[in-house]
Amino acid sequence: MYPDSFKNLIEAFKFFPGIGEKTAERMAFSTLDLEEEQIHLFADSLKKVKAQIHPCSVCNSLTDQEICSICNSSLRQDTLCVVEDPKIVFLFEKLGTFRGKYHVLSGLISPLEGINPEDIGLEKLIDRIKKEKFKEIILAFKPSIEGETTSLYIKRILEGLDIEITKLASGVPMGADMEYVDALTLERALFDRKKVE
Amino acid sequence: MYPDSFKNLIEAFKFFPGIGEKTAERMAFSTLDLEEEQIHLFADSLKKVKAQIHPCSVCNSLTDQEICSICNSSLRQDTLCVVEDPKIVFLFEKLGTFRGKYHVLSGLISPLEGINPEDIGLEKLIDRIKKEKFKEIILAFKPSIEGETTSLYIKRILEGLDIEITKLASGVPMGADMEYVDALTLERALFDRKKVE
Repeated sequence: MYPDSFKNLIEAFKFFPGIGEKTAERMAFSTLDLEEEQIHLFADSLKKVKAQIHPCSVCNSLTDQEICSICNSSLRQDTLCVVEDPKIVFLFEKLGTFRGKYHVLSGLISPLEGINPEDIGLEKLIDRIKKEKFKEIILAFKPSIEGETTSLYIKRILEGLDIEITKLASGVPMGADMEYVDALTLERALFDRKKVE
Repeated sequence: MYPDSFKNLIEAFKFFPGIGEKTAERMAFSTLDLEEEQIHLFADSLKKVKAQIHPCSVCNSLTDQEICSICNSSLRQDTLCVVEDPKIVFLFEKLGTFRGKYHVLSGLISPLEGINPEDIGLEKLIDRIKKEKFKEIILAFKPSIEGETTSLYIKRILEGLDIEITKLASGVPMGADMEYVDALTLERALFDRKKVE
């Protein structure tokens, strides 16, 4: 029905998670409105990203260098923020307030899904912590069984070292409508309540 | 913050309408999970679509030929469905039930937006109708002031020719929840009510 190259482009857009037939079609039609120059920029950056972007050899975050700019920065020290996915590094960086370094695991421990401690790159993390002498390790995992399990596991391994180990606060999100906050979150917010000062 | 090629890819995804920063970032991250082969298929079909797809010289629908396969088909005759956008051709084709031909205008007449009859390619349509001797012209425009204006205008030009001119039925969409149908639609459905047979 569609011309062949158009059909192929629709199929290509569907490679992306969350892009179904309708959206892929809409994007393919939009492609026709793009300038020649935009098309080439798009096609080239697709290829370049695939060819150039890879995990940083120190922290596993994404970089086009051997070692990423954050790991290379001498202004960032003392604190290491451990995350489960490179995306989270960039979420934190957008805040612009965290001035420590990062370490990206390959996911979280999940006995249910058969993901064991040795599968998520903990050895590299521990080696790095021992070498770089951080004062604080922030475990920034999602509040979930897997996040808790991974946090506890790391805490146990690091026991005896003179490092503060912290995790993100859980509770009611800023600006949330109280009536839409789920029960688990509310329970946690109540349990972790803080003095008004 | 992001490596350069990654930043470029995010910007490229934002060329598409409806794709904001967040979605563009999500898609750029997904790109990293695609196979080399998929990336090349994607990049190539982007370029091919831009280079090969253009309006059919007869009906203005999209094709990679001089004349599209529908216009070239000898099995499709008698009825011409006039639409405001090439997308609509493919919507109808998906139904698989319409066996006539199409003609794509460049939009609809809209005095408010300064779009006049001479701006939407009506001359080519009229020439074609006179030449191809259709028995029926279906005006498949969206139910709106612009759609009505364009329909009336075309009807007036074709007056005197022995051609039936029809338009799509308006009314309550199939499967709609009556309480969510807007007042204008309901009024139209009431006005155009049909005998139960």
